[in-house]
Amino acid sequence: MSQPTRSGPPFEITIGSVTRPLRLVPVGQMGFVPLIEFLGDSELTRAAAQALLPLIPEGSEALLTVVTNALPLAHELSDLSGLPYEVARKKRRTYMQAPLIQEVPGLTLGVSETLWLDGPHAARLSGKKVVIVQDVIASGTTAAALARLVERSGGTVHGYLAAFKQGNSALPVRYLQELPGRV
Amino acid sequence: MSQPTRSGPPFEITIGSVTRPLRLVPVGQMGFVPLIEFLGDSELTRAAAQALLPLIPEGSEALLTVVTNALPLAHELSDLSGLPYEVARKKRRTYMQAPLIQEVPGLTLGVSETLWLDGPHAARLSGKKVVIVQDVIASGTTAAALARLVERSGGTVHGYLAAFKQGNSALPVRYLQELPGRV
Repeated sequence: MSQPTRSGPPFEITIGSVTRPLRLVPVGQMGFVPLIEFLGDSELTRAAAQALLPLIPEGSEALLTVVTNALPLAHELSDLSGLPYEVARKKRRTYMQAPLIQEVPGLTLGVSETLWLDGPHAARLSGKKVVIVQDVIASGTTAAALARLVERSGGTVHGYLAAFKQGNSALPVRYLQELPGRV
Repeated sequence: MSQPTRSGPPFEITIGSVTRPLRLVPVGQMGFVPLIEFLGDSELTRAAAQALLPLIPEGSEALLTVVTNALPLAHELSDLSGLPYEVARKKRRTYMQAPLIQEVPGLTLGVSETLWLDGPHAARLSGKKVVIVQDVIASGTTAAALARLVERSGGTVHGYLAAFKQGNSALPVRYLQELPGRV
């Protein structure tokens, strides 16, 4: 399959001692966005988790993330911090018990997405100060839906953490680096 | 939503120093299967990865897994072993370049599943001795499809690793524990 090409210098990121060239993927006819790949890159994931560790707000008691790209990052951050983490899914699983269901409104195409948080997992967030963890926060609609899941679980949102920020979300996100939306 | 109940002692597993009660989920009217949850449990994931580490065959050069449940486990095993890992997806992603597409025949319902391995990721398996990593190997059809992806990438299958074995797959799987298919 032929892909549009882009001229100019390669785009790369450095986190701690780890540097990665980023693949640029075409968005329609309008430009390219840099692709962050934590899946399949345990070294970059670990470097990001280590850099995010001091950004976890004091008093945090649990983390909440969503499949799939942020999953190894949230796991690693849980491992390093000792804080438990929970994972919202994007499809209903047959084993779920009384899951919380949360819509994420679609900004660009009007296609909304649905998040599912299994009942026993939601129960573990009850009464807890919870930090939302994502790989990239762009518009913030997914982060806002995760925040609603925290509240509906009986927890309180204690902050937003992302490896990268892309765009102008109004949420008070703590992040490592800003990524251009289009290059 | 009411769930069928099961009498008898709770079902639990122990890996290293980590013990977890397992939720038993109903399968039709016919019984229960124990549910292994690595997502949201970094302690259990780490214990499983540490126990699997010595089972990685000598000479292995890369790991291949599939989303979603085995993902944190494969990440952690990559982290501990220093071996790179790749991840097959169950849906096509828009950014994929010349992905390998592999069907997984459905045994029970006749519904087949499709695995997608992004072209640049497949290229990283070329010429490598690759170990398949899963959370649970049951029928072995997914493991066999992952093995085909390794071969089609130009790599060779160097072994099968799973935290748990469930049922009677003919594949030469190295695993930590056997799980009952139904309880």
